[in-house]
Amino acid sequence: MGKLHDLIKNIRFAMLTTQGTEGMLHSCPMTVQEVVDGSDLWFFIRRSSAGALDIGRNPRVNVSLAEPQDQKYVSVSGSAQLTENPPKAKELWSPLYKTWFPKGLEDPELALLHVSIDRADYWDVPKGTMIQLQELI
Amino acid sequence: MGKLHDLIKNIRFAMLTTQGTEGMLHSCPMTVQEVVDGSDLWFFIRRSSAGALDIGRNPRVNVSLAEPQDQKYVSVSGSAQLTENPPKAKELWSPLYKTWFPKGLEDPELALLHVSIDRADYWDVPKGTMIQLQELI
Repeated sequence: MGKLHDLIKNIRFAMLTTQGTEGMLHSCPMTVQEVVDGSDLWFFIRRSSAGALDIGRNPRVNVSLAEPQDQKYVSVSGSAQLTENPPKAKELWSPLYKTWFPKGLEDPELALLHVSIDRADYWDVPKGTMIQLQELI
Repeated sequence: MGKLHDLIKNIRFAMLTTQGTEGMLHSCPMTVQEVVDGSDLWFFIRRSSAGALDIGRNPRVNVSLAEPQDQKYVSVSGSAQLTENPPKAKELWSPLYKTWFPKGLEDPELALLHVSIDRADYWDVPKGTMIQLQELI
C-alpha cells in the first residue's frame, strides 16, 4: 500500500460514506489522518455521530479522498469499526482537533475509527487514467 | 431546494457512491452539472462504468460535493436511474465533455443519470454548523 500512502498523505479532504437505515447512503466530511498502516486507515470520529451509529449497524464504508485542484481522486472501500486504542489515539492526536473534541484525548465523544481496506481505486483525470490499486476480494 | 442549488452551483467536484456486489461501497468522480430541478440532480455517466452497473442492481446512491478550500461539504442521498432524455442531454451538453464522450451526444456510451434526492446535508466546517437541508423520508 505504499502507493496509496503516497497518494493520500497530503490530502486534507475526505468524505466517509455509510449505509443508514433502509439502505440510504450518507456521507460526512472527515479529518484525514496522515497514516496508513499496511491496509488500514484511521480517523477520529464522534461516537454519537450519524456515521458512527450507521457503522454500528453496517460496517461497510467508502472513504473518498480528493485533490480537486489537481483533479486527483481516490476511492477506498472497506469495513470500519470504532475501536479503543489509547496508544494509537495518542499517536494521531493533534491540538487542532480540540475544535471538535474540546476535552482532548479524554473527551467522551472521541473514538477511533479503523477502516480495513478491501479495495482502493485512483483516478488521475487530466491523464485520463484509472488505476486500481488493490483488490482483495 | 433553492438553497441546495445555491450551494452546489459553483462546485466542480463530486463523488458518486454506489453499492456494489456483496455490499461493498464504491465511489467515482463525476462532472457536476450546474442544474438542480426541484429535488433532482443530473449527470452524464458512461453506461459501462462500474457505477452505472451498480445502479442497475441497486439505485440507492450518495453524491458528495465539496469545496475543500472553503471547507464546505454537501451530502446528497437519493435514488439514481439511467434515463433516456435527449432534450435534457442536449440542454446539459458541453463540448468539454468530448474528453469522456468523443462522439458527443451520439456517443453510445453516453447516458444521463438522474438522481432523485431524498435528503441533503450541508456542513460549513469553519462555522461549526451542520444544516440538514431536506429530509423527505
